Amino acid sequence: METTTSSTSAQIIDKDQLLTHWLGHRKVTRRTLEAFPEKELFEFSIGGMRTFAQLIKEMLAMDSTTARGLATSTWEALDEEKAELTTKAELLASWDKSTEEIQGYWKDITMEEFQKQIKAFGQYDGTGYSILFYIIDNEIHHRGQGFVYLRALGITPPNFWEQY
Amino acid sequence: METTTSSTSAQIIDKDQLLTHWLGHRKVTRRTLEAFPEKELFEFSIGGMRTFAQLIKEMLAMDSTTARGLATSTWEALDEEKAELTTKAELLASWDKSTEEIQGYWKDITMEEFQKQIKAFGQYDGTGYSILFYIIDNEIHHRGQGFVYLRALGITPPNFWEQY
Repeated sequence: METTTSSTSAQIIDKDQLLTHWLGHRKVTRRTLEAFPEKELFEFSIGGMRTFAQLIKEMLAMDSTTARGLATSTWEALDEEKAELTTKAELLASWDKSTEEIQGYWKDITMEEFQKQIKAFGQYDGTGYSILFYIIDNEIHHRGQGFVYLRALGITPPNFWEQY
Repeated sequence: METTTSSTSAQIIDKDQLLTHWLGHRKVTRRTLEAFPEKELFEFSIGGMRTFAQLIKEMLAMDSTTARGLATSTWEALDEEKAELTTKAELLASWDKSTEEIQGYWKDITMEEFQKQIKAFGQYDGTGYSILFYIIDNEIHHRGQGFVYLRALGITPPNFWEQY
């Protein structure tokens, strides 16, 4: 992990800490995905909402794409369909691949990128940090919904606070 | 809003931006609270979970207490009971009072506080930023659950992305 930010005083959160924060949330989300039974992952929902598999696919459309966009200034369009992912094992493998890609791109993201005006996914205006915070928040939001699905199915979700 | 951080280069997120981020989430959570019918706010839940009123009370136990703790290094113990809040109007008023208090304390939080080791609420070890991020994430997590409750009740939740 690179340490170019460690000598900067008075950072609210430094770059290494932000990666740890993001990856910590990804661990909780992965555990949430693992907790779903195969069938309910792709079929269960409440109130006409998307299934948890669909919510995970939305996250997978945004996660490493954002890391790559911040690292290379090249943004792909969102692909939330991911029709090729039809099993829990495939979703978990795709999740792990994204996690590796995020770690790979992270070292190439400059500190200046976080305050730069960008057009994420070719369509959303924001700053680097605001886009990244948005996609982390979106993951937390939908994972919280996954917790309700699990509770409704009589399954205990992972602990929210165990982000390690 | 104070601008002591505006000249610092290469911040991932500066202090004014972090307050705007937090207050933006609070606006969405307030809209979520407003969207609940009075009775269901205090009685409806799924899978044995807490009601949305109880989740809001947990947020109210953490929000301005965290801002005060970071500003003054004085941490109160968590009080999630808040038995005195028995109506939606009282929860909304308490929410608005906390929002005002957060804004009041914010200017007294030093940049150094975010990286300082603290014991939040007298019991949780962390850094200033990690505690603050945790309570914002906790709000997002439980608000996402409130969205499911609303959908289950046939009510359209507010837009997640309208944080202004």
